[in-house]
Parts: sequence; C-alpha cells; structure tokens
Amino acid sequence: MSDARHTFNLSPGFRMKRGGELQGAQLAYETWGTLSAKRDNAVLILTGLSPSAHAASSIGDPTPGWWEEMLGPGKPIDSNRWFVICVNTLGSCKGSTGPASINPETGEIYRLDFPRLSLEDAAHAAHELVQGLGIERLACLIGNSMGGMTALAYLSLYPASVRAHVSISTAPQAQPFSIAIRSLQREAIRLDPKWNSGDYDDENYPETGMSIARKLGVITYRSAMEWVGRFARIRLDSDERDDEPFAVEFQVESYLAAHARRFVRSFDPNCYLYLSRASDWFDIAEHGEGNARVALANIKVERALVIGVSTDILFPLSQQEEIADGLSEGGAHVEFVALDSPQGHDAFLVDIEGFGGKIAPFMAAL
Amino acid sequence: MSDARHTFNLSPGFRMKRGGELQGAQLAYETWGTLSAKRDNAVLILTGLSPSAHAASSIGDPTPGWWEEMLGPGKPIDSNRWFVICVNTLGSCKGSTGPASINPETGEIYRLDFPRLSLEDAAHAAHELVQGLGIERLACLIGNSMGGMTALAYLSLYPASVRAHVSISTAPQAQPFSIAIRSLQREAIRLDPKWNSGDYDDENYPETGMSIARKLGVITYRSAMEWVGRFARIRLDSDERDDEPFAVEFQVESYLAAHARRFVRSFDPNCYLYLSRASDWFDIAEHGEGNARVALANIKVERALVIGVSTDILFPLSQQEEIADGLSEGGAHVEFVALDSPQGHDAFLVDIEGFGGKIAPFMAAL
Repeated sequence: MSDARHTFNLSPGFRMKRGGELQGAQLAYETWGTLSAKRDNAVLILTGLSPSAHAASSIGDPTPGWWEEMLGPGKPIDSNRWFVICVNTLGSCKGSTGPASINPETGEIYRLDFPRLSLEDAAHAAHELVQGLGIERLACLIGNSMGGMTALAYLSLYPASVRAHVSISTAPQAQPFSIAIRSLQREAIRLDPKWNSGDYDDENYPETGMSIARKLGVITYRSAMEWVGRFARIRLDSDERDDEPFAVEFQVESYLAAHARRFVRSFDPNCYLYLSRASDWFDIAEHGEGNARVALANIKVERALVIGVSTDILFPLSQQEEIADGLSEGGAHVEFVALDSPQGHDAFLVDIEGFGGKIAPFMAAL
Repeated sequence: MSDARHTFNLSPGFRMKRGGELQGAQLAYETWGTLSAKRDNAVLILTGLSPSAHAASSIGDPTPGWWEEMLGPGKPIDSNRWFVICVNTLGSCKGSTGPASINPETGEIYRLDFPRLSLEDAAHAAHELVQGLGIERLACLIGNSMGGMTALAYLSLYPASVRAHVSISTAPQAQPFSIAIRSLQREAIRLDPKWNSGDYDDENYPETGMSIARKLGVITYRSAMEWVGRFARIRLDSDERDDEPFAVEFQVESYLAAHARRFVRSFDPNCYLYLSRASDWFDIAEHGEGNARVALANIKVERALVIGVSTDILFPLSQQEEIADGLSEGGAHVEFVALDSPQGHDAFLVDIEGFGGKIAPFMAAL
C-alpha cells in the first residue's frame, strides 16, 4: 500500500497538561503543496475525533481522503497555493502516539497507563510539528468539530502563531448535552465486559460497546430532517432481515449498522475513550481567567471564518456565534456563516457546496 | 400500600393486530371524579411508554401521580366535572397484561412468547375498557407521546367514539430519527448478555442495557438548551466521584445515572422492547390507504387541541402541525399550540404552566 504519511518525533519528555510525560512520542501527518521559501503559506488542519491525517489524495497515497473535495489543486483549500498539513491527533491510533501505542518504558501497550489527555496536549504536539517544519507562523489554522476545539487551544497557547483561522462546527467549551452523549458512548464501551478495563485484544474485543457508541455518534452527527427525506419509513426487504427477535427492520437501522461495522474494528476503543473525555474537558475559559469570552477575546488573529450549521445538535449554532463574537472582540475581522445544511454536524464532510463556497473565497482573499 | 388501581378483564381470545390472541388478559386503570348519569363526561388519558395508570393522587392512593399538577379537583383536567380514566397500556408491566405476565396457557411468564404488540392493540384494549364502563362516547381523549400515537389509532379504529381530542408531543408516524434512537435503546438491552433472549430474572438482570437505554431516553426527552442553564459545566465534588477510570465527573452525568437507577429495576426489559417496537411500527397511514394525511382527515372529532414543543427533538413540532392540519381537514375545530418550553419532549410533564394554561380553557369550553 502506498502511503503519504510522515512521522514527526515529539520532544523527549513531552509534558502532558494534566501530569505525566511521553517518551519517544510521534505524530503522523500528511502534506499537500509546497512550502514557500518564506515559509508563509502553511495551512494546518486539525481533525475531528476519528479521522486520520489522510485528508485528501496525493501522489503518495491516491486513495480519497476524508476531505477529498475540499483540499487539493484548485479546490477550496488550494494546494497549488498553500502548503497544507493535516495531523493525526495526539492520542489517536492512526499513526500518532496514543493509548494503543507501545509504552517505550515497559515495552507493553499503554492502554490506561497513557497519561490523561487534554486537547491542549494535542495542540501542543501539533505546534511542535509546525515548528519542526520550520514554520514560525501559520497562514491559516483550520479546525472542525473536536479539531476546532484543539484549534482554539492552539490559538490560546501560542499567540501570534497564526494569521487566519477557520473554525467549523465546534465549541468554546463542551456543553452538558454533548457531555451527556459522549459520556453515554464511553459508558457503552466501558460496560462491555470485553473492554476489560482497557485490556482487550483482537480475540476479545469490545465490539458491542463500540458499535453502540458509534451508532449514537452517527445519530447525533446527522439531523432528523435529513433522515426524513433519506429514509422515511422504508423497510428492508425480507431477505435482508434476519430472524432474531427485534432484529433491524427499517433502512435507517441498517444504515447505522453499516456505519458501526466500518468503525468498530478500525478505531481503538481506548483511544476513543481518551479523545472523547478530552472533548468533555475542553473549556476555553481555562485560558481566560475562568471566562470563555475573555479567553476568546485574548486570541489574536487577523481574519477568521466561523461556520456552523442550524441542524447541528451536538455543536449548536449558538456556540459558533459565541466564537465569532469573541474573536471579533479580540480584534479579528470575522465572517460568521450559519448554513442551513440538512446534514447536521457532519455537514462539513458532505455539504461541500455550502462549506467550500465559503472557505474558497476566504482562503483566496488571504 | 393503598391502591386505587382497578382491573378490567379484556374479552376472551383478545385478537392482536399482527396475529395471535390473548387469553385472560387484563388492563389496570385508575379513575378520578364521577361518571354522570348520562355517561357523557368521561375523559380517557393514554400514557407514554413508561408511566403507570397512576396519573394523580386520589383517596385510594394519595401518592403523587405522574401528572399530579394537571389532574384533580380544580386542576386543568378537573375531576369535579370530568370522570377521568387513565389506563396502563396493554403490553406494559404496571398491572396490565404484557410480556412480563403469566401466560395462562403455559403457567410461565410470556417473555418473547407474547404476541407482537402494536399500538392498535393498545387502543383496542382501551376501547374495550371504555365500553365495559358503559361509556358509548368519550367527552375527550387525551394522549401524550406514545399515548398520543395510541390515541390516533383509537380515533381511527373507532370513529364517532370521541367528542374532543387533546394531542400532546406525539407523531402520526414514527420518523427515522426516533426509530434510530429507539432501535439503539433496544439494541443496548438485547446486546446485554444478561438479557439472554428475554430469559432473565432478578439475579441475572440486563441492568447495563436498561441503564444505557434509559440514559439515552432521558437525553432525548430533554433539550440541550435546558441543560446549559441547569448543569452548565458544574463538576461533582471529589467525594461524590469514584476512582474508576472514566468515571462520571460532571453533574449532568450523575443526573443521568440517578434517572437510570430509578428506572432500571422498575420497568420490565421485555415490556420495554415490545412497547418501543410498537412505537416504531406506528404509522397512521395504515388507516388511510397508505396516506397519513388521508388517515388524519378520516378522523372525526368536534374539537381538538394539538400541542407541541419547539425544543422536542424526538417528536418535532412539524409532526404536531401535521396532526393539527389533518384533523382540521377532517372537519374538527382545531387549536394548534407551539410552546417554547425549554424542557423538550418532557415538557408536558413539567411545564404545567405552559401546558395547563392551554388544556384548562380547552377542557372548560367543552
């Protein structure tokens, strides 16, 4: 398999916000385009909870990435002009060091011995990578969903390190509804006897817990409105159903099952737990003397594009507005966009016309 | 314990819509007020998935009921004027016959041998009770949530049997988002090894599955907006936390845990599965040649009050509007009310000012 993935070594004794340090930790990342001689055309993309660094295809890896339509030559994030970096979050399992990695001190998989992870740690690691690539200041920092929270941490921790910011469907702090959803996803995994306090293997794997967690994710990532049009009350053909009592019967149920099947074995359960909890913990108020508004106004960027979606129940529009207002108060020239995409939180992945239509001119004007 | 619960014997060989019949089946119900000599002041309340027939206190049972503030002397549903009946749904476990009852043919608990249950069966049973009480025509039929769907089935199956209708936070047919949520709740129970294909007992009980199902219920019954004000990001005191990895940390998590604790052992898991699936199956279009609008317009009542809540994600306002429009087309004088209660689907249980403020004058004018 061809691979466009690079590896960056984090500094020895990488210190974690909530205690502990990592030895020999790495970040996986991919890049598109060419860094200019002045090193002033770098764009960093921070991802949601589950995506890898493979945001788009390239010569090194021609398979489509998770943001294929958004990134590449002539696309809204134009790799003919920008040197684009996408990083796999610290704590994830797509090449970066996390709970599924080997702890060099013991030779065993970290599992729950991995230090408690915060999104500030993820931002810290991404910033080391950017500096390691010889980039003093990013032309633009783009974050969506959990990556948008990581981006706000980055902007708070490293003032003046970013010229422009694109904030997508994210939150300045986790709200109780989102905490409740994520807490329940974690509980489904933790209560699966095969999770076994994090000590599972391929034979004994918390498939049930992961499946429930993923389905709940998919339900809250999309919107009721979209599904009325998409699935209505269409039933599966009888040959697609099994005979179990209470087996799936409606198309929407098999759609969820297909999503879960694809995810369950491709994402490490302990990594999921760590990243999910890090999202709950995130509160930008910690960077503004306990006040989120102050923290947002402390962020100094020249321009920002803040986009949210009216049908997003996990990261509601009001939170995008809060980010836009705060950045504006800090002196940024802010464009706030409320899209009516029916696809809910996931819209940034699929409503390329809506999102690309805003991101393209914003990037072009930088 | 004092008990105001009455029992009604359904007809022998009670036939179920999807096949099978029940022998010796019963309904539990309670009443408030006095039936007039003309038997023209009867009001029937059909409940959501989990409530019992104990909607309000009475001399026979002074404990508060689930709709205590709404029903009683001088309250919005005034028992000084109305003879009010509340019935525990067929298939439930609060005194009515359901999967947790003894099958008289075998002497064993039905469990999954209980015939497949639809809300039309629940309506059929409630109608037998009303007739058994000597009531030809209800003055008013009130249904909320699942009970609202049962009420629509009742109105479709027994034309001219109801004078006025109050429809609260319900649906003319289950939409895919609600199906997805309920399907996942059922899956959490079914995948709990202790569910054991329905063959559990008090020692081996699917507590985990029931807990996840209930928490998901509570999350979707309330609204994100309410929780921002109620819980924000308040954390538990350290002495309220336990040491388990990923244990609950935020107040909203312990709120969910408390709800789950109260529910898990008080509602039978198989009954939950049957009623949940019956809700998914409900589609009023089956009573209108495949067309929901036609079916609603076929319903003949003189007056109707249709109430929904803008923050309800499970039974969205658009579905209440659909009911109101359909009933109106059928010739009813319809009052449609969209409340802005922050409490989401559960608002009818707690926003007594909002709901009572509409129900009281509607009932008074009958």
